[in-house]
Amino acid sequence: MINFQSTERTRVRRLPKRGNYDRETVYKILDEAMICHVGFVVDGQPYVIPTGYGRSGDTLYIHGASTSRMLNSAAEGIPVCVTVTLVDGLVLARSAFHHSMNYRSVVILGTARRVESDQEKLSALRIFTEHIIPGRWDAVRQPTPQEMKATVVLALPLEEVSAKIRTGPPIDDDADYALPIWAGVLPLKLTPGIAETDPRLTHKLEAPAHVKNYRRG
Amino acid sequence: MINFQSTERTRVRRLPKRGNYDRETVYKILDEAMICHVGFVVDGQPYVIPTGYGRSGDTLYIHGASTSRMLNSAAEGIPVCVTVTLVDGLVLARSAFHHSMNYRSVVILGTARRVESDQEKLSALRIFTEHIIPGRWDAVRQPTPQEMKATVVLALPLEEVSAKIRTGPPIDDDADYALPIWAGVLPLKLTPGIAETDPRLTHKLEAPAHVKNYRRG
Repeated sequence: MINFQSTERTRVRRLPKRGNYDRETVYKILDEAMICHVGFVVDGQPYVIPTGYGRSGDTLYIHGASTSRMLNSAAEGIPVCVTVTLVDGLVLARSAFHHSMNYRSVVILGTARRVESDQEKLSALRIFTEHIIPGRWDAVRQPTPQEMKATVVLALPLEEVSAKIRTGPPIDDDADYALPIWAGVLPLKLTPGIAETDPRLTHKLEAPAHVKNYRRG
Repeated sequence: MINFQSTERTRVRRLPKRGNYDRETVYKILDEAMICHVGFVVDGQPYVIPTGYGRSGDTLYIHGASTSRMLNSAAEGIPVCVTVTLVDGLVLARSAFHHSMNYRSVVILGTARRVESDQEKLSALRIFTEHIIPGRWDAVRQPTPQEMKATVVLALPLEEVSAKIRTGPPIDDDADYALPIWAGVLPLKLTPGIAETDPRLTHKLEAPAHVKNYRRG
């Protein structure tokens, strides 16, 4: 199926023309962004915590220490919301009111399950690392059994999912187009700087290609 | 008071040495980031929605259309969590397990109030615009009474607040420092591109200095 089924809870109500339920669109946003914000509820209070993640097909994996309140709450099978947002630019209109941002976001609702099998867990850890920086997994020391135990991995099915996207120039009120005010878009992009070698590096090594040629999106 | 009082709910439990309750630190993160993620609960389901915001002293303002489910839910006086995250770099360790990110985040818990007075609302709208791009407010058409009515502004007091920060090189297991694996930090920064003039611009205008010289943080 190409599209996610929109539900009463995931249907984009505000500015519905920005809503998108296309699988490839959702995948692309999830694969380009670096972090997600996980929402969960404890004693009626919502918490929103940033964390890393990775995707495999229609499964989103999030992970953390086995002592994490977020992961242990979510692992109990409580409802979560995972949101991923890319900021693409400032939309500078002629009126203050029509200022906006170009962005791409994905909202996933559902209930996470704790990954129990070592095989799926190891695969998820590989996916986390490769999501952040492709090529890294094969270059580093693999997890030990103790490290595997110290890591909780949760799997959230991509079922109730929607994307929301704004692109393009500002949309001003008709009368405002005559105003002598500059308007347009200032693009923004998460850009890598120069790699900083760990001062404790014990070998004379250059940063490898997967670091030096890093780019996102 | 320089520090926010940490509470049972805001105390950073995972890696407490990363926790920070200093006002200036919190302000700096809030002022540098572009968007926040607002968490709220409807029928037991958490929702996490990205949106713009602005800060004035110990008040965080968020805003949106008067038809927004998020804002209308939050305006009912239900508990919210507002989280702001800056990704500063990839922390590339010698083991997969110790990979991390450098980041600065702020988590705010509380109950929002709807801003009713026109004076505070206008001041908040100015703060939103100036937060996104300083110098813009005075260059554009100001809000009309109808536009003011179409905008809901919520104010959230900065009372229950914590920051969490990771900086510096990877921390590897002692034995791993001998491995011939490059390790270090790849800095990341949200960087502006070249301003794209609106194709519908009716005057010959260059992008103003507040656009051309834009930088963040």
